[in-house]
Amino acid sequence: MRKITPLPLDTPSHEMVTDLIVRYAHALDDGQIDLWPGFFTASALYHITTRENHDQGLPIGIIRCSSRGMMADRVKAFHTANIFEPHCYNHMIGPVVIGPAKSADAVSSRCNFQIVRIMEDGRMDLFASGKYLDEIVLEGGVAKFKERIVILDSRNIDILIVVPL
Amino acid sequence: MRKITPLPLDTPSHEMVTDLIVRYAHALDDGQIDLWPGFFTASALYHITTRENHDQGLPIGIIRCSSRGMMADRVKAFHTANIFEPHCYNHMIGPVVIGPAKSADAVSSRCNFQIVRIMEDGRMDLFASGKYLDEIVLEGGVAKFKERIVILDSRNIDILIVVPL
Amino acid sequence: MRKITPLPLDTPSHEMVTDLIVRYAHALDDGQIDLWPGFFTASALYHITTRENHDQGLPIGIIRCSSRGMMADRVKAFHTANIFEPHCYNHMIGPVVIGPAKSADAVSSRCNFQIVRIMEDGRMDLFASGKYLDEIVLEGGVAKFKERIVILDSRNIDILIVVPL
Repeated sequence: MRKITPLPLDTPSHEMVTDLIVRYAHALDDGQIDLWPGFFTASALYHITTRENHDQGLPIGIIRCSSRGMMADRVKAFHTANIFEPHCYNHMIGPVVIGPAKSADAVSSRCNFQIVRIMEDGRMDLFASGKYLDEIVLEGGVAKFKERIVILDSRNIDILIVVPL
Repeated sequence: MRKITPLPLDTPSHEMVTDLIVRYAHALDDGQIDLWPGFFTASALYHITTRENHDQGLPIGIIRCSSRGMMADRVKAFHTANIFEPHCYNHMIGPVVIGPAKSADAVSSRCNFQIVRIMEDGRMDLFASGKYLDEIVLEGGVAKFKERIVILDSRNIDILIVVPL
Repeated sequence: MRKITPLPLDTPSHEMVTDLIVRYAHALDDGQIDLWPGFFTASALYHITTRENHDQGLPIGIIRCSSRGMMADRVKAFHTANIFEPHCYNHMIGPVVIGPAKSADAVSSRCNFQIVRIMEDGRMDLFASGKYLDEIVLEGGVAKFKERIVILDSRNIDILIVVPL
């Protein structure tokens, strides 16, 4: 017989976790950066770092927001500073695996990503690869990120990154 | 508690939707283009366009078939005109998200794709990225595309495209 | 109504199959090659080949292990011979499709992969694409590979491959 441990009913289901992660990616692909903070709880942590820094336990990150308010500020700054060549992204998200819970109310999950960037003239390149380590909770029956750690595989970061990943 | 709206029983389940989309991709990866029309209903719409044209509401497309018969004709033409260097594809499909239903009998879904092309000498490149917007129905208990809109991220289309995506 | 054939209860569920395949990929991405043999049954077959050889029914492979013991030997050799520039991988796994069962106790599945390689200096490239054809069984309630055939799309194999895919 199959050994299965179902997720507690007061946490998001596996399907809800995947759904949240993919809607987030689609919103960014569509350039709807204004929607971005709404995927998080009010006191959520959002952190982009590299594999190298993460493995060494270094707290240094490329972006670090410790509340939804900081994310909203970032969105405002993005609209002001948007001086770049127009481009868009295509997030490919791998199947999501549920890990051991780090707290009673949240589901811990992990998935890979590979992001393609498309410039206005049509050039495409592999922009970034890495993994998402997420803590996801239910808020009013809806799944939200309580924590999202974005770990980039490569240390070569395009210093123009201002968009969330 | 979780807020979930289950799909009506006379429409395909989430799992059936994903299954259809992935079997379609595998058939194309295997070069089994003859199977392609069979994934659609008789009066289905198949349309490839670019993000730019789609966002501007332009009806111009790269391929447009408004019935399964037109798709079958396209397959015939493909066999006749196949004068290209042999190559194959690898479709990477992202997790499928179910959107608000546009009609009572169909499930509306969206997923990303990134397609790698492999030439006979072994060269690989990222051929196309984009998203599928699908309307999927049950026909005799089996899921079929009633509509499949393929939206390419890049405006640089390889003009030799004759294969469906 | 939906036509669905559920998997027998003494075989892994669809979700367990996906979970096994993705944990395997994450372990390799993390460089935890020691975990690799543990994903297989004791008498499992692991085989890497090319699409060309596979389609022609040629038994020639790039790697072939016909037991978990052979896999453990391979891991040992890997630790001894690891003279390469440090690098890591990012496995993107497509949604898993269940095929017709080849034996009563196993689930047959297929999924695509696209693997990015990241060198220590940050360079990224598309390393390999292909598909996994798997036979997966329950062993003490836990899903394991009874057979894993890795079919690479390209015939251009980096001859330095010593890591499992």
